[in-house]
Amino acid sequence: MSILVLGTVALDSVKTPYGARKEMLGGSAVHFSMSARIFTKVILVSIIGKDFPQKHLKFLHKKGIILASLIKTQGKTFRWQGEYRADMNAAITLATELGVLNSFRLEVREHHRKIRNIFLANVDPDIQASLLDTMHLPGLVGLDSMNYWINNKKKRLLKVMQRADLFVANDQEARSLTSEHNLYQAAKCLLRLGPKIVVIKKGEHGVIFYSKGLMFSLPAYPVHKVVDPTGAGDTFAGALMGYLSTQKKINSQHLRKALAYATVSASFNVEGFGVNKTKDLTRQDIESRLKKFRLFTNF
Amino acid sequence: MSILVLGTVALDSVKTPYGARKEMLGGSAVHFSMSARIFTKVILVSIIGKDFPQKHLKFLHKKGIILASLIKTQGKTFRWQGEYRADMNAAITLATELGVLNSFRLEVREHHRKIRNIFLANVDPDIQASLLDTMHLPGLVGLDSMNYWINNKKKRLLKVMQRADLFVANDQEARSLTSEHNLYQAAKCLLRLGPKIVVIKKGEHGVIFYSKGLMFSLPAYPVHKVVDPTGAGDTFAGALMGYLSTQKKINSQHLRKALAYATVSASFNVEGFGVNKTKDLTRQDIESRLKKFRLFTNF
Repeated sequence: MSILVLGTVALDSVKTPYGARKEMLGGSAVHFSMSARIFTKVILVSIIGKDFPQKHLKFLHKKGIILASLIKTQGKTFRWQGEYRADMNAAITLATELGVLNSFRLEVREHHRKIRNIFLANVDPDIQASLLDTMHLPGLVGLDSMNYWINNKKKRLLKVMQRADLFVANDQEARSLTSEHNLYQAAKCLLRLGPKIVVIKKGEHGVIFYSKGLMFSLPAYPVHKVVDPTGAGDTFAGALMGYLSTQKKINSQHLRKALAYATVSASFNVEGFGVNKTKDLTRQDIESRLKKFRLFTNF
Repeated sequence: MSILVLGTVALDSVKTPYGARKEMLGGSAVHFSMSARIFTKVILVSIIGKDFPQKHLKFLHKKGIILASLIKTQGKTFRWQGEYRADMNAAITLATELGVLNSFRLEVREHHRKIRNIFLANVDPDIQASLLDTMHLPGLVGLDSMNYWINNKKKRLLKVMQRADLFVANDQEARSLTSEHNLYQAAKCLLRLGPKIVVIKKGEHGVIFYSKGLMFSLPAYPVHKVVDPTGAGDTFAGALMGYLSTQKKINSQHLRKALAYATVSASFNVEGFGVNKTKDLTRQDIESRLKKFRLFTNF
């Protein structure tokens, strides 16, 4: 079954120890789509400005991403400028220009409102809520957020969390949302806020999965040269939700496998700037790295 | 085959969010012994002062630890005082009294010098080197150190590293020894310094294993309440080296399993103060948690 993702489409300018790039195609919905598309059909819901390069639209279309609910409006496309120093786990935001995100009104096509698998990537919790209001029969709902919303719109975020099945957060976000330092305590706390499944991403340290029936963890796939981690979390979520969307019923075996696919997909993302390493990724690439990953972690 | 460990025997005073304890039995050689003894016979080489409580000696003897090369001398036993706040990964050292460690001269019994499996736990690299000089035919040599020696006696430490087969370090130590932030790059760098095997411990984030033929990683065993992490690294090393000491030839399957035993053993250690949770640990306890750990991480 197909998946609908709500998130940002951005122009990212990034500096890392391996170089700098200006106004690359980026944003949470884009990175999510790059890995989700490998497993299923992806409908991208977002907003761009009149300045958005046509070549990027062509590229997304060519990748099979459905763009009929992507709004193009007066104003500037969302831009993010960031830097990574030695610690590639933490981005330093240099500038954010919200542009058209300031006046984001959803326009989801009627036939897209019937889609049951939904991922609410990082945007204003109010927009996330209104997307859910729009949908006819949400099935599997995944949710992501970021520290900015935790600090500035916590109440609204908590309301959306009550409507989510699966909540993904990085370790910092999980800690600041729950005031628990121990990540298992934090995960337990997050479960009490609504979602049935909590996934805590720890960047280079892998991931923790927590639900009532299953506790599970994986290290990150070993990457010797992290070129640009921007979008790794979204790429992770894309494979996770993309794979789960293809399952009729989700059992613990599917969840384990989805997490492994997600880990492997994210490892490709960080090896290049922007979508460089994920744009041509195939299922075969992922399966082949999954085999190596199994050797890397099973005992 | 038995294993000889050189390290400290200490009286530890520790404060954590779960309470405080004064002058507990501790030290690198003690924590190492607590898990290594589960797999093989342990010979403890260290030094204590006249003030060392007799009950601790009785306890170690009762646990089967061979104490014939443990020196008792004039002066005070080594004492460490530390605190852990929310981030249980990092100890804050409040006080260190070296005491008898200041004048540590090895006195290893002749029949102990024939032992082939050796672990050089964290002490002055010069003492580690002189232990190796003392031994007749070192076989498997494991080595640990700490930031203090990396900063103050790096050259001497590098000399000992050339004589070690297996080097264990925590992530900070690996980074500061190699000036590499990426831990795989750091591990590669450490391999060039002599050891054939590098194990990087990441506390709550698990472990990375790196050798020419095998790259391997495990998350930490999930612990919901980290009471006192003091000695977790030594407990880890004890099970790792203890299990490997029982193997005639070491292959990659043994290494994976040793790392899993080590991870599980360390998880017991952090659940209680000092040696509280490791002092009565049995092989059965470890095997049973290993089973759970497999479910926790295999996909």
